[in-house]
This record gives sequence, C-alpha cells and structure tokens, in this order.
Amino acid sequence: MRNFRSDLALESSALAGGIQVPGVRVEQLRLGDLTETVVEIVDERGMAALDKPCGRYVTLEANQMHLPEPALLDMTVDRLAETLKGMLPELGSVLVIGLGNRRITADSLGPRAVDGVLVTRHMRENTPVHVKGRLREVSAVAPGVLGVTGIETSEIARGIIEHTKPDAVIAVDALAAKETCRICTTMQITDTGIQPGSGVGNHRLGLSQETLGVPVIAVGVPMVVYAATIARDALELLIDDLEMDEEEHSDALDALVDRVVEKRLGDLVVAPREVDERVTHMAELLSLGINRALQQRLSKDEIPALMH
Amino acid sequence: MRNFRSDLALESSALAGGIQVPGVRVEQLRLGDLTETVVEIVDERGMAALDKPCGRYVTLEANQMHLPEPALLDMTVDRLAETLKGMLPELGSVLVIGLGNRRITADSLGPRAVDGVLVTRHMRENTPVHVKGRLREVSAVAPGVLGVTGIETSEIARGIIEHTKPDAVIAVDALAAKETCRICTTMQITDTGIQPGSGVGNHRLGLSQETLGVPVIAVGVPMVVYAATIARDALELLIDDLEMDEEEHSDALDALVDRVVEKRLGDLVVAPREVDERVTHMAELLSLGINRALQQRLSKDEIPALMH
Amino acid sequence: MRNFRSDLALESSALAGGIQVPGVRVEQLRLGDLTETVVEIVDERGMAALDKPCGRYVTLEANQMHLPEPALLDMTVDRLAETLKGMLPELGSVLVIGLGNRRITADSLGPRAVDGVLVTRHMRENTPVHVKGRLREVSAVAPGVLGVTGIETSEIARGIIEHTKPDAVIAVDALAAKETCRICTTMQITDTGIQPGSGVGNHRLGLSQETLGVPVIAVGVPMVVYAATIARDALELLIDDLEMDEEEHSDALDALVDRVVEKRLGDLVVAPREVDERVTHMAELLSLGINRALQQRLSKDEIPALMH
Amino acid sequence: MRNFRSDLALESSALAGGIQVPGVRVEQLRLGDLTETVVEIVDERGMAALDKPCGRYVTLEANQMHLPEPALLDMTVDRLAETLKGMLPELGSVLVIGLGNRRITADSLGPRAVDGVLVTRHMRENTPVHVKGRLREVSAVAPGVLGVTGIETSEIARGIIEHTKPDAVIAVDALAAKETCRICTTMQITDTGIQPGSGVGNHRLGLSQETLGVPVIAVGVPMVVYAATIARDALELLIDDLEMDEEEHSDALDALVDRVVEKRLGDLVVAPREVDERVTHMAELLSLGINRALQQRLSKDEIPALMH
Repeated sequence: MRNFRSDLALESSALAGGIQVPGVRVEQLRLGDLTETVVEIVDERGMAALDKPCGRYVTLEANQMHLPEPALLDMTVDRLAETLKGMLPELGSVLVIGLGNRRITADSLGPRAVDGVLVTRHMRENTPVHVKGRLREVSAVAPGVLGVTGIETSEIARGIIEHTKPDAVIAVDALAAKETCRICTTMQITDTGIQPGSGVGNHRLGLSQETLGVPVIAVGVPMVVYAATIARDALELLIDDLEMDEEEHSDALDALVDRVVEKRLGDLVVAPREVDERVTHMAELLSLGINRALQQRLSKDEIPALMH
Repeated sequence: MRNFRSDLALESSALAGGIQVPGVRVEQLRLGDLTETVVEIVDERGMAALDKPCGRYVTLEANQMHLPEPALLDMTVDRLAETLKGMLPELGSVLVIGLGNRRITADSLGPRAVDGVLVTRHMRENTPVHVKGRLREVSAVAPGVLGVTGIETSEIARGIIEHTKPDAVIAVDALAAKETCRICTTMQITDTGIQPGSGVGNHRLGLSQETLGVPVIAVGVPMVVYAATIARDALELLIDDLEMDEEEHSDALDALVDRVVEKRLGDLVVAPREVDERVTHMAELLSLGINRALQQRLSKDEIPALMH
Repeated sequence: MRNFRSDLALESSALAGGIQVPGVRVEQLRLGDLTETVVEIVDERGMAALDKPCGRYVTLEANQMHLPEPALLDMTVDRLAETLKGMLPELGSVLVIGLGNRRITADSLGPRAVDGVLVTRHMRENTPVHVKGRLREVSAVAPGVLGVTGIETSEIARGIIEHTKPDAVIAVDALAAKETCRICTTMQITDTGIQPGSGVGNHRLGLSQETLGVPVIAVGVPMVVYAATIARDALELLIDDLEMDEEEHSDALDALVDRVVEKRLGDLVVAPREVDERVTHMAELLSLGINRALQQRLSKDEIPALMH
Repeated sequence: MRNFRSDLALESSALAGGIQVPGVRVEQLRLGDLTETVVEIVDERGMAALDKPCGRYVTLEANQMHLPEPALLDMTVDRLAETLKGMLPELGSVLVIGLGNRRITADSLGPRAVDGVLVTRHMRENTPVHVKGRLREVSAVAPGVLGVTGIETSEIARGIIEHTKPDAVIAVDALAAKETCRICTTMQITDTGIQPGSGVGNHRLGLSQETLGVPVIAVGVPMVVYAATIARDALELLIDDLEMDEEEHSDALDALVDRVVEKRLGDLVVAPREVDERVTHMAELLSLGINRALQQRLSKDEIPALMH
C-alpha cells in the first residue's frame, strides 16, 4: 500500500516490522517513561527505504508528554537539550527559526516555541554584568508562512542569515504523523533540516545546509494527522479483518482512497480538541530544551530571570 | 447501520433519501447561494424517526458561508434574524448564553458570539437619549463548561435566570456534524433548545423550556466531525464499492468500528486547519443576526456604535 | 489633600507616616526579598482612618515579583497559600470567582487566575482513584463584567451560590494602586471581600459575607494606576519643591486637578508596556497559591497532573 | 520648555500657536467629522523647527475614529487609501512591514494591520482566473522587535528587500503622542519613513529610503502617551494657573520633571483601558485602507473574498 504522509522517520513503513533495513541503524533506549530512538540513515539504500535524507533522527516518546508532569517534563527537556548539543557546533552564534502560522493553532508550535527562546544577540554591548562572558549569541525569528507573507520562508531565512551570519540554525516546526497517538507525545530532532513539503504548513521549499549554507537542526512535534490517513487506516483494518486478499483489492482500495481524499477530506486534519492547550505546553518544552542546550553556562534559574 | 453522531436534524438518516417521513414536514427554499430548509417534527412518529424532540429546525446552508463575501453574509444574517424573530416572543427581555469552552478553538463559537451581542440590560437607568425607548433588554453570558468551572452549565443558567428573569433564552453552541463539508457552511436554529449530550463540548444536561422554565432558542454551527465518523464513512464507501453485501458484514463492521473508535480515535475531531479564523467569522455572523433580531428598532449603523 | 484612589489598605495616607493609627494594628515581616505586612482594622476608629471595613489585610511585596525568579516565586506562592489557609474555613467547598474583563488585558487578572485553578466539584462521582478522599471540592467561574453581560457580577455570583452552596468564596481581582511601583509587585489578601467601586473594573456592588451570605476572601494585585493620580503626584512634588505653602494653594490645586482629571485624563490608566506578559505571570502565581491552599492533601506534582 | 516626545508632526510645539513657520506649509481640510491636515516640511528651516525630516505628513483626525461608525470608517479608509496612492509609485510591487511587538497590546498595531493585508506575491503562478491581471504584487511581514528577535528590524527588512526586491515599502507602526486625546483618534501618513527612536517600541534604527534603498511610506496611529508627558502637562497647567513666571521657575521644573521621570515613571505609558479592542479596530482600518490603495483594480467585495 502507498505510504501515507508522515514527517517522522520512525513511522516509515520500512521500519514498521522491526526488521533490519540495509543502510539504516536503529538504537533504542528506555529512560523511565521516556523512550529515545536513534534512527541513522547511513547510505543510499537507507535513503531509498525510508524516503528521507542521510543523517540522524532522534525521537523522544512518552504517552504522557502532553501532560504537565514535572519529572517527565524535566527528563524530556534534558534529553532534548543533550541531543541538540550533540548536533550543534560547540561554539558560535545560533539562529532559531519558528516555522508555521501563528494564527492556526495546530501550526503555531514553531512561532510559540520561539517566543520562549532566550535571545541574547542584541545584548552584546550591554550584557548584564553577572552573566558577562557566559552567554552564547542567540537570535530568533518567526517569519510567517507563504500564504500570509507572500514570501517563501526560506527566502526570508536566507536574507536574515546573510545579514546576521549565524553559525547554525535550529528550525522548529509542527509535524504531521500517521498515528493519532503520536500527537503531542513524540518529538523528533534531526540534523538533516526541514524537507520540502513537510510540516503541517507544507513548506514548499526546505531549510537545510544546502539551501541556507549553515548546519540546520530541525526539531518537531506531531500536531495533526491528516484525515485521509485515518480513512486509509480504517480500510486497512477492514481488509485484514475480513481476511480479504489485500493484493487483489489493491486497485479498488487506491481508487476509493483517492475519492475519499479528494472529494471529501481535502486538507482536513485530525487534532485533539485540547490542541490549544497542548501546543502551549509542547512549545514550552521545546523552548526550555533549546535554552538549556544553547546556554550551557547559565543555571536553570538564570535563564528565566534573563527572559524579561 | 448505526446512526453516527450529528446535532443537525437535517443529517438524520431518516431524511437522507428524500423520502417523506411520517410526523415530519420538510420545506426547502433557495435564496441565491443560500438554501433554507425547515424541518418540523410534529408528532411522536417524527420524534422517533429523527431522534429529536418535536419542534422547528431551520437550517441555513451555503458552501461559501465561511468566506467573507458581503452579499452572502448579509443574506445569511438577514435569514438568521428573521428566523429568530419568528421563534422569540415579540416583547420582553432576552438572555443570550454562549455555550462551550473559550480555550478550545473549535468549541469557542458560543462564547465568541456572545462577545459580539449588544448588551442593554444595564443601560436601564442611563440609556443614551437618542435610542431611548427603542432598546430591547438583552443580557449575555458565557458561563464556561463543566470541566473548567466544576458546575453544570444548566445550573449556572438557572441561577442567573432566577435572578434576572428573562422572557426567553437564546443559546449559541458549536455543533458536531456527520459530513465534513458542513463545517462552517451550515447554521441550525431550533425552538427546541439544547439537547443533553449535544455540541462539541458534550453538555451533560440540556437547556430547554423544561429545564429553564422559559422558551429556549438554540443556534448552532457545525465546527467538527468526530474522527470516528470519517472512519465509518470510509468503510461504508468500501462496502458499496466492493459490492459486498452490507447485511452480511454488518457485525464485522460494527465490531471493527468499535475497535477503531475505542482504541485509536477516542475523542479526536476533524476540523479545518483554518478553524481559528473560521470560528471568528462564524461568531461574527451569529452576533450580527442575533443583534438584528433583538434590536429591530435600531438601524444597522446604530448597533455597532452602541457596542462600545 | 484629597485621598486618591487605591484599593490597597497599605496605601492609606493614614499609614503613610508610619505613625500608629488608633483602631489599626500593623505588623511587618521580612522573608528574604519578600515583605509581608498585616494591617488589621479592629474598630470604627480604624475604619474611619483607613476608609476600609474591619478585618485583616495581608500584603506581600517584592520588587521582583513580576519576574520569573523561581525562589521568590516559590516563597510568594507559599505565603499566599498560608494566608489563604488562615482565612478560609478548614473544611467545606470553595467557589473561586475571577472578577474583571477578560478582553481588557489589565483587567483580565481574575479570569486568567481562575483558568489555572484546579476544579474538582464535578469529579465527585469519578474522582481518580489515587487521589480519592484527598480532594477539597472546588468550583470556579469568571462571570464577566456588567458592561459585557448586562448583569451585575454580584447577581450572577448570588445565583451560582444559591445553586451550588459553597462554604466560602475566594474572589480574585485586578486592583488600582496609587504608586506605579506597586504594579505587579504587590499582592493583597483580605477577609473583608471586594468593596463596591473597587478594582480596575469598578464593580458597582461589592462581594462580601453581607451580600453573598458566605465568607469572601479577596485576593488582588495592582495592575494600573489612574493617570489622574500621576498628575496629582507631580503637582504635590512641585509644591514641595518650590516650598510653596500647600494650604494656601490648596483650592487652586484641587480645581486644577479636577480640570486635568475631568477634561483630559478621564478613565486613562498607567500600565507597564509589558502588561500582557505580567498579567500572565501574576495570574499564574495566584492560581498556584490558591491551589496549594485548597488542596493541602495533594503534593505539588499531583496538582498540575490533575489539571487536564 | 523642553519638547516632550511625540511622533506626530502636528504636535510639534512650533505648530502649536497656529503661527506660520518658515519652511513649513500647512493645509487643513474638513470632511464631515474628519479633519485632514497636510504638513509639508520643505527646507532646513522647517526641519529644524519641527525636528523632523523634509517631506509630507498627512494627519487624519476624528474624535470618534476608534468607534465602529460605518460612515466615518468608510471616509477614513478612503482618505487613507487616497493619501497612500499619492505617495506610492504608480506601479510595481510593495512590501508592507508591520513594526512592533505582537505580544504587547499597545505595540501590536503594526503586526495586526499586516494580518489584514491582502498578500498576492505568492499567487504569481496560480492567480485566480477572475482577477488575473488586476492584482498588484504585495508581500507583508511582521519581523518582530529587537528585544524579541535579537536582530534590528532594519536588518531583517534589508535582508528581505534584497531577496524580494519590492519597489516600495509601507511601514505600519504604533506611535507615541503628547496628548491623550489623540490615542486611536489620529492617523499619520508620511513619505519620510520611520525615524530612529520613534514608535511605542523605540526602534533604534529607522526605516527610510536612505537605509532601505526604496521609498518608505510610514503609517501610524498614536496608541500611548508616556506617563512623563502627563506629569509635565499637569505642571505646565499649574504654572499657568498660579500665574507663576514660567521662565523664573524653568530650572526647578526641569529638575523636577527629570526626577519624576527617572525615579518613578520610567517607561510607563498611559493607555485607555480598552486598548485591546481599540488596537483591533484601528488595525482593521489600516488594513482596509492599505488594501484599497494597493488593489485599485479590485472592487471592495473582491478584496475580502481573496483574503482566505
């Protein structure tokens, strides 16, 4: 069956069965309620099998990630920070880009995460004395989406990068998943940047080292599942249940899905009713992790005190 | 097949085929791009067939209702106002209640509509001179949902009604539909009030003349479709397409839907990605119509000028 | 000079000089960066001198209260909780009322604080097993202001109280202060309830044991200073500076202030530009303190986990 | 007396008396409730007297501008559109920049106005057929403020302009005025761009033809008055009233104002309590006017229909 849209490497059907895929290394770690999976695509066989570029894809998963449970929250922030540290250059300035549309709740994760990032680039001349010499230079923008600005996000990003010359970029984005249970319970961090056509907002062009000229770390959380994916899943279950021969009915199924998708479901997304609250919580998790990764020489208490 | 959840009388499967249902009168009117359907349930046969109480259900439909097209907007507001006038007592004070949770976008239609209602009850002593004697007494509240206040909406409503003694209530609510194409393109006005368990927020108790002691007109717009409904629809299409015998597979199907619903879809809803913008637009339509119905002796320009 | 408007007992001019006022007991405590002052008005002399009803007024002050400094935040929340515990009945259900207008940032403190209160009243039948028997019954409403609902807040409150019969009320409100330095740096807790005409929103009627029939604890934070107060202050400073005889010019001054107030400043308020962010922070402080006071048998981690 | 901060050419003290200022041309027009004033600074004498660069400053004033009165609204939008047309190049693409901080209500005018601008640049390939050939190319960004992004607004603007090469820029900003009565009742349009240090947000660098390389039209509405200005005004009135000799007391006054400003008022601003609602209304006025100026070949109804 055709592969339905997912921005998570972990959801690639090639990995579904738990079978080893040539060109792909998978490692999994359990940390209490948190599961950390590292998928590494090392060559062209892996790229083809997973339909994603070569690089590291770290996934943090916890059923309760969307809830304000202090211990889990702290561990998640900590693993996010450690993963980012491992992917970022050790020194140099960083630009954080929040992708997505602030006015569409499910797509506002990026802009909201950026709101919580400790920005220091403008403090150069007048850094507070007590943190002098301990701040990494950070700037942060939420450039808006093509439909709202009329300008490709990557064009705006390139313009800003040429003027401010950061050493690396962190791009935060709301993702689409295949499984509804992943909404706000999974976080993906990858050193391959943002792929064209990915995200809730369907970025036309991607953001990567090739397009921007500096390393791009992408951080994302699934916020929606396309309704078409739900329909497809229901059909697959039915086929299984009725013990129909999947091969035999494959064409009829594809045609049917096309019809459902095109005529009725279009761009509709499935999201929890509590999406407003969850996007706020997940954005906070991401800002905390990014701040901890970028400002390693500040204590946990110093960061919020500098935010205002 | 089991009837999936819809708050629209028009979506009752009994009416689906266009066949006459005993105890139900249906009339339809085309007004340019707007279709107005009046479903009247006149006796117990109708109640049983449509699973709704006796009364009038007026539905306004337009594919472009969610868009800011001035001509369509004006006609919709006009028909909403006329329909409300026909259901409200001619004189006396009115309390507008906005149901739903302001912090959940898809459920915030009621509170937002209430924000735009011209409230006049507190002006009694100091009404602006130029409108003196022309204002109908209106009050408006958005009492919040059970999960947020700990109190049943109907308890709060009863308390307020006992103290302020309105002659009628208009209750505004976000609805659930069966068809995704109805989201923000349909409006239902009924003199039967709000039924228990209806709405996006699943009101446990209803709001009606029986529970509140005064006539209750309910106005609603579908904002979501339950994801389970989408799955069900996909399966029905498949059955049709494969020319399977529906009866034969009925039990397998029901079991399958239960599994999908319970294990995977839960309370998930399908909504357009632009739900934030659409709820704002639809709430504005509703406030305009309610204000026009309630303040018939004010001109269209006097109403906004009094709002502030 | 006339006394300019303040909702803080601490700002009463009678207390300004630090002189003992008959009928008033004042005690002050320093807790690191936090100052706690208890003003107790014990008889009619005190009432007349401070123009406030008999009762306890506890004020918490810290210059950095508006900043997210974890240690100070924790101490403030702790002292707020302890003060509330001392004023609330030991057992029984509590209704938290958030006063003010959600759509006016400086007046939205009450509704926002209520958003963060752990509501348990509706859990009676299905309390999560692990907290069974440890929850105090709490409900919470933000009834909106007279100008928005057309109904006096106290009428709505009375209606709800008659139906839900709480044993005590906590009313949260945004206050007006005389000194700009108090905005978001001071918190007042009093067992005398809300006085008529107080608050940013100028409640016409008060909320107190007399009007509601149950004990009313009021919690407030100054969010604005009336612009007229600023003008007055500037004039007083000028008089002092020029060594003018205050008595001699008193009438001219009063006339001048009236002119400035009436013609030019009206209802204008002075607020920090960052009021949006500060009201969010202060509302969070208040919810944390209220939750800790009401749910003494839950741990700090159990409360947020139950919020959703 | 020192000139207190105002972004309005009309409030320059040189113009206060209604005396002719060399190097400045002033023309005034009454259009019903709307007053349109054109101040033209033509040479260095005018620049020195008004402390603003050479160019046109058009001011639209109406006491009721902040109210939703349809006739006044339409006239204001019309005059705004006509003034913009007179300043913009006849053809070519336009970039609209919304200055200010979205999270500070009084400073959010620019970003909110940009939200309502019809953006067309991305439609180049797939313009809806019925408007083909009638759309002017427009893009729009709200780049955020230095304190939030760490990057000067003008740096971001330059980066975007280099990549998208617009023929002109419209910059929208919240202004500071001297008179509280101007808040949300006055609109200034100027072909001189944004001056360094102006606006509610105090832009460090300006935006003008010199810094950006293309014509920059600035549109602004006063949203605040600095509290220090109120104090100063009160003092001036007192001086007048007491028939004191202003010259004689000038030093004492200056010292006093400094003390009040520095010690007590700082960055405090005076704003109406209804600032949230007013900024929404004024932003809508601005978007309507900008859209009408830029899309002259679309009807009033076509513009909203294309917005979504």
